Amino acid sequence: MRTVKVFFVCLLLCTYSAFGFQNTQIDYNALYKIKDEGLNNSQVMDIAWNLTDRIGPRLTGSEGLKRAYDWTAAQMKEWGLSNVKIEPWGEFGEGWDVRKSYLAMTVPYYQALIGIPKAWTPGTNGPISAEAIYVDVSSEADLAQYKGKLKGKVVLMPTNIEAKTTFEADATRWTEEQLQDMTTERVSNADGSFSQRRISDFRRAANLRNAAYQMFKDEGVAMVLNTHRGGGQGTFFTSNGARREENPLPEMEIAPEHYNRMVRLLVKGEPVRIEADTKTEFHTKDLQGYNVIAEIPGSDPKLKDEVVMLGAHLDSWFAGTGATDNAAGSATMMEAIRILKESGVPLKRTVRIALWSGEEQGLYGSRNYVQKEFMNNGMPNKKHEQFSAYYNMDNGTGAIRGIYLQGNEAIRTIFTEWFKVFEDMGASTVTIRNTGGTDHQAFDGIGLPGFQFIQDPIDYGTRTHHTNMDLYERLQAADLRKNAVIIATMVMQTANMDQKMPRKPKVFDNLNRSR
Amino acid sequence: MRTVKVFFVCLLLCTYSAFGFQNTQIDYNALYKIKDEGLNNSQVMDIAWNLTDRIGPRLTGSEGLKRAYDWTAAQMKEWGLSNVKIEPWGEFGEGWDVRKSYLAMTVPYYQALIGIPKAWTPGTNGPISAEAIYVDVSSEADLAQYKGKLKGKVVLMPTNIEAKTTFEADATRWTEEQLQDMTTERVSNADGSFSQRRISDFRRAANLRNAAYQMFKDEGVAMVLNTHRGGGQGTFFTSNGARREENPLPEMEIAPEHYNRMVRLLVKGEPVRIEADTKTEFHTKDLQGYNVIAEIPGSDPKLKDEVVMLGAHLDSWFAGTGATDNAAGSATMMEAIRILKESGVPLKRTVRIALWSGEEQGLYGSRNYVQKEFMNNGMPNKKHEQFSAYYNMDNGTGAIRGIYLQGNEAIRTIFTEWFKVFEDMGASTVTIRNTGGTDHQAFDGIGLPGFQFIQDPIDYGTRTHHTNMDLYERLQAADLRKNAVIIATMVMQTANMDQKMPRKPKVFDNLNRSR
Repeated sequence: MRTVKVFFVCLLLCTYSAFGFQNTQIDYNALYKIKDEGLNNSQVMDIAWNLTDRIGPRLTGSEGLKRAYDWTAAQMKEWGLSNVKIEPWGEFGEGWDVRKSYLAMTVPYYQALIGIPKAWTPGTNGPISAEAIYVDVSSEADLAQYKGKLKGKVVLMPTNIEAKTTFEADATRWTEEQLQDMTTERVSNADGSFSQRRISDFRRAANLRNAAYQMFKDEGVAMVLNTHRGGGQGTFFTSNGARREENPLPEMEIAPEHYNRMVRLLVKGEPVRIEADTKTEFHTKDLQGYNVIAEIPGSDPKLKDEVVMLGAHLDSWFAGTGATDNAAGSATMMEAIRILKESGVPLKRTVRIALWSGEEQGLYGSRNYVQKEFMNNGMPNKKHEQFSAYYNMDNGTGAIRGIYLQGNEAIRTIFTEWFKVFEDMGASTVTIRNTGGTDHQAFDGIGLPGFQFIQDPIDYGTRTHHTNMDLYERLQAADLRKNAVIIATMVMQTANMDQKMPRKPKVFDNLNRSR
Repeated sequence: MRTVKVFFVCLLLCTYSAFGFQNTQIDYNALYKIKDEGLNNSQVMDIAWNLTDRIGPRLTGSEGLKRAYDWTAAQMKEWGLSNVKIEPWGEFGEGWDVRKSYLAMTVPYYQALIGIPKAWTPGTNGPISAEAIYVDVSSEADLAQYKGKLKGKVVLMPTNIEAKTTFEADATRWTEEQLQDMTTERVSNADGSFSQRRISDFRRAANLRNAAYQMFKDEGVAMVLNTHRGGGQGTFFTSNGARREENPLPEMEIAPEHYNRMVRLLVKGEPVRIEADTKTEFHTKDLQGYNVIAEIPGSDPKLKDEVVMLGAHLDSWFAGTGATDNAAGSATMMEAIRILKESGVPLKRTVRIALWSGEEQGLYGSRNYVQKEFMNNGMPNKKHEQFSAYYNMDNGTGAIRGIYLQGNEAIRTIFTEWFKVFEDMGASTVTIRNTGGTDHQAFDGIGLPGFQFIQDPIDYGTRTHHTNMDLYERLQAADLRKNAVIIATMVMQTANMDQKMPRKPKVFDNLNRSR
């Protein structure tokens, strides 16, 4: 039995070696230097502190994001990176900041309410005091009964949000079992009928909301209040902003308990009065969006025109300081490239960092970038050919536990081998699954290898993602340090592979669809 | 073996029966009616809703507590209870309400801050805009360096509060193992040196705080900010209020993340500016405290002068609506007496409910009540003799899991037997231990049997106790329904016992000490 085993292992090893051993081999010397710099001399929390506490919320088009462009570019210049640019990706078209946010219930008694104006809505322009009204509608027909009753009122509408008591921990890490589950290919069992029903439910709800909103404007409502998702206990989630073409009313998103208290009072016939004083400013100059770009030029004359990228979005929502979404990713990527520069590890290909903006509104920064950089008239250009891979981080503050292959089987061996050295950091899961919702999709969409990591959830879904409480405290320092080391290593390995990262076949057959 | 066992059981039963079988026997007929009314026709959540959402915060001396006196008295009259009184217990000396609470950081960027004026502090009397300063002192000597630098500033001081990410559930229930642990007598292992050290640490910290506070007043500080205990994620804990004789400055308690962000900025030399607009009102008329009292007169001519009491404090802190502290207890006790009245179960002794006030400032309502009612010139009067037992609920919203004997061994058999019928509700733990911190201590202190229940903690320590988030949502409806049934049953049993509840011996030897 033993002999037979050895024979098979040998066969396997030889085959493996013949088809790209160089691509999977770890540069232990470089790894040592990366770990030393990243674990013993980390600056990731200092970078994150600057992005959060000091620079503050970074909504695309806001003053905060402009400060972040300037500071990150200056910082990366200071580290000696090359070709540092604050590069416009196109017209974002919005520029807006909150100047004052005060909301309180004054009847039946005084309590200040936790909330913030919804993005791109106007303020009240001075203090207002108004009666609250519950517009209890489940269909457009129900709206008629409120005609003539809404002028000057503060409107609340039905919600299914409950701020339940949480008998489960806010923050968790993936168990080994959950990680194992993630490695199975996901094959949908749905027959489509359920999702069709959900889509039609959503559409009906959206139509009702739009009709109601139009009526609120026609009737001269003073303010609209909203609450979203779970949260609770002082955490509230913000939704997407207003659309400027809607010419929106003053609108605020508030803590679910504060919202639901007013709904319960109004439903039981108790008068509720609101006082508010909110002020927002619409900027008019330079409504472009920007990405911040910097490089370490490749050292190999034959390979330096080939590029490996790493990136994360720098923009955030604005009720907190976007600590986990996505100062965590931006700081980690900046730290990763700082480690690569500072440790002086060999990098044959050019390494480029991109800090995107407009991600929260539709991956605008990255989508525009890849079109400008890698495409001409909808077809791949030479830089597309010279591109190897893009690594993204945008799943909060949690430790990297592995990586999504994004359906690219050809990379499984490479990543599996690379991750072996991070098994003792808890990161070794390689899954064929896709993950979406962020900037690697811009690369994936034009047939370029783009990857996101499996990260521990921590309290991303329960407390931080798009909330008022996405603040510096929620960052897990040890996780971010480890993540920067893992990403720096992945980038270093990618920069020094014999070949560029293998791509998924035939993506251009589907280019127009997947873009 | 079997025969021997039966013999012992028989011996035990006969002994037991001889020493008070009547006291331990459950009235199953009454129990059935109580459970039926309490589980199938419960009003506890409606009562709690009125106390929280509708009436609001109930700080002693506030308008909210006055509304609560009036509403609870009216409600209990409506239920047909007798001798309903809003009974003064003495001069509380404070009357205060928040009229406006607005606080924001404006430099380095705008963010509204979650906070509220500290009890019995003045407001800013109009909008202020001021520089924040971190007074980084660890001893009184350190204060000197801030002399001349504080005028018109908003002051923050060092804190060890961190709003850590919570990898454990906010809300929990006692496990069987934990309940079992609670049944062991607690015997201190301390030799006193540690607690002496802690006391001296506390004293040093208090002296420093007082010296700092005096300096802040002398220097003309605009406002003092504080943060307390854990919480986080939008929850903040309030501390005790200001002392009026201190002639306090405007002072606010705020969310720990918001506080610590400013500290971090100031420590790193970043300027921070605050804008605030707070208004509080000191009432001048009728600064007495009141208890709300109501009765079901006893049906037995020989026993009706004997009294069984149940109660809870009606007052609360004011950053939330005091849902778990202690609308939960007040609503449960009101529901328990409503069940007793509505179900028409026999009650030989008089049953009396008391809704206390001033509990949060030192059990004032209950301590004054027991002195007036049961004592004359420091010695027990006839009513003291005629008193059986007092049941209190003030451990939040959690399900009753058992009861503290408060060191009274003579009651163990009685309560153990009574709780057998609540084993299927999860309540059967009887522990010899004491529990403190609330109004049963007023009774215990003058030698009368006074009891508190073991309740599941839920999120009392993590989210609700004295927080801005102690709101209606945090109430556990099923728990409160069960609690009202258990308490109604305990009160019914106590009202119908052959004897009054056994007392601890010789308490009057120590009366002056324990009072």
